[in-house]
Amino acid sequence: MKVLVYGSGQLAQMMYLAAVPLGVIVSAVDVATDTVVHPVSKEETGVSLQDAIKEAVAITVEFEHVPEHLLLEADKSSKLFPNVASILAGADRVREKALLTNNNIPNCQHLIISQVDQLDDIVEQLGEKVIFKASRDGYDGYGQWRMGQASDLPKLRDEFLNLDLQSVPLIAERMMQFDREISLVGARSKQGEIACFSLAENLHHEGQLHVSVAPITGLTDELQQKANAIFETLATAMDYVGVLAVELFQCGNELFVNEIAPRVHNSGHWTQQGCDTSQFEQHIRACLGLPLGSIELRDVSAMVNVIGCKNFDRDFMEIPNVHLHWYGKEVRVKRKMGHINVGAKSHKTLGTKLQKLTDYLPVEHFPMLEAEALRLQKCKN
Amino acid sequence: MKVLVYGSGQLAQMMYLAAVPLGVIVSAVDVATDTVVHPVSKEETGVSLQDAIKEAVAITVEFEHVPEHLLLEADKSSKLFPNVASILAGADRVREKALLTNNNIPNCQHLIISQVDQLDDIVEQLGEKVIFKASRDGYDGYGQWRMGQASDLPKLRDEFLNLDLQSVPLIAERMMQFDREISLVGARSKQGEIACFSLAENLHHEGQLHVSVAPITGLTDELQQKANAIFETLATAMDYVGVLAVELFQCGNELFVNEIAPRVHNSGHWTQQGCDTSQFEQHIRACLGLPLGSIELRDVSAMVNVIGCKNFDRDFMEIPNVHLHWYGKEVRVKRKMGHINVGAKSHKTLGTKLQKLTDYLPVEHFPMLEAEALRLQKCKN
Repeated sequence: MKVLVYGSGQLAQMMYLAAVPLGVIVSAVDVATDTVVHPVSKEETGVSLQDAIKEAVAITVEFEHVPEHLLLEADKSSKLFPNVASILAGADRVREKALLTNNNIPNCQHLIISQVDQLDDIVEQLGEKVIFKASRDGYDGYGQWRMGQASDLPKLRDEFLNLDLQSVPLIAERMMQFDREISLVGARSKQGEIACFSLAENLHHEGQLHVSVAPITGLTDELQQKANAIFETLATAMDYVGVLAVELFQCGNELFVNEIAPRVHNSGHWTQQGCDTSQFEQHIRACLGLPLGSIELRDVSAMVNVIGCKNFDRDFMEIPNVHLHWYGKEVRVKRKMGHINVGAKSHKTLGTKLQKLTDYLPVEHFPMLEAEALRLQKCKN
Repeated sequence: MKVLVYGSGQLAQMMYLAAVPLGVIVSAVDVATDTVVHPVSKEETGVSLQDAIKEAVAITVEFEHVPEHLLLEADKSSKLFPNVASILAGADRVREKALLTNNNIPNCQHLIISQVDQLDDIVEQLGEKVIFKASRDGYDGYGQWRMGQASDLPKLRDEFLNLDLQSVPLIAERMMQFDREISLVGARSKQGEIACFSLAENLHHEGQLHVSVAPITGLTDELQQKANAIFETLATAMDYVGVLAVELFQCGNELFVNEIAPRVHNSGHWTQQGCDTSQFEQHIRACLGLPLGSIELRDVSAMVNVIGCKNFDRDFMEIPNVHLHWYGKEVRVKRKMGHINVGAKSHKTLGTKLQKLTDYLPVEHFPMLEAEALRLQKCKN
């Protein structure tokens, strides 16, 4: 059995590794060249995209920004999971916000800005602290702008005059005061069966995910159920098949959806060691109509991204239940090179393990690690 | 980093899958054609064997019957792990028995038969129940002969007259009365560090391993330590690097070595889900001089071989902590097609899970499963 994945990065690679034991061979599409490549070696397979589509029993994506014409072509085969509308909802914040609003899912107060005039009363509507996000790809290298106070507005207005807001509107969001960023990764099968992994807590630094911890500290059944209900509403509304990630802001007992990612997600990598079934195997199972796997926890887990470096002491591998996942890419500044999954019996002992890890990993590339180790060590268990 | 494996079957495939996350790419040598192939697709890589040897940071084997000239050639690189003598000890029962005897390791009472005359007093020496084993490859399709009573001897003598016993002697072994067949899989690093997995209990049917259970039921520290001591003596004597399997007969509290396999082993497949570090990752770690991983148990495990069939209900995958490992081979009678790892909290609940599995798997291909399920369900915990 063959599965074709649009995108040929680490997510396709990890799908491949999870699929082989199921008797499933994953090929990847390099969307820059429309060629079919091996998800690990990235070598061209010599199979044409047309033939690969024909041979596949299922087609999926590792990222939402696949060119729309490729998605529509793949969709003709009726083998694309999740469906095109779901992928586009992840790639276009206008569609995403409509999905959330139409399904009464709490999300950040926002406006869609398709002409500069709308800025005139934005402070009245959203306050002085606003984040502007391009609704989709289109502004090379620019995706976000921040207004910290009303006096920033004229400069932003000037900048926005240079953008084609009709084609690519901005989403203006009130900057939320939240307790923490968490995410729910789950799967929905072709039969509508749903299985959600435990909530993960995500630490960002300069716009990149650095550390995830799952389950979140202080997780209550109530909060997990609330998140699961959001997932179920969204996945069912989209007739979603596969793994879907929902990024959330937690404010007390309230959850607000920040964004969704129609794919396996960095904040779900901990499931590779931390759960009975990894998100990668789960996604393959869902796309193939196999039963979903158990999402039972094996450990309390942390996932530590390795960003922009490759030279560090591999002796960290002597720490029990610490597992490297390397992507095999050339090193570049801010590039995700791999991740390290860490398992422990409690948040407290997880903190101790992260503390040990800091002995091996250079602080300049792992700036969040020590503070998180200290935070977790203060947990009661 | 690249590792080259002689042999291109499922063991090479599973080494590949375990190595990619470590940033290590495994290639395989098809020893029938001396070509370098991808361990999963089995497609030729286009790299010559000479170049692959040069590029590799370590070279290893997935089976012991690699043609000796290939081993010697690989050994010239000083990158072959385990060493040639260790591999040959696994491939030649004369060497193997010498290794055991020289290190005072209990093993089955035996004689090396290099001329037919030696049969004259064999009943006196070993009794009436004797198993004759070819000491190494060489007798196409014939490897074992059994004497159940003294009157079988003349017929065997006639058969052996047709063999070149000088070139390929037979090992005549007294058939042992043992309680059960168990195995110890462990690893030794380049630094001499040793880590042994828990003892596994192995159920055979018609000469093939069907089910392994680890840890063995009723395991005592004493027995595990006794097995570990045998492993340490052997691995140290051989200056062994990598994963080594030791097959044992248990008679009460005594252990006798039946044979050794200088490689990852079918009876260690349960470590993929059942241990912190799988035997495949452990072997790669050892060959590369990385620290050995933790051998901490995650579960009580069973490994069920899928032999000679591929059409069965994949819905067994809905059972929690049940994991398929498929090898992607064409089906043939008695061919190992894959295995299923099953995890549980106790031997008793493992028995219940194996019982459930029987609902999905055809009894004619899984003849040992139900009896083992019943046996385990009778365990106290």
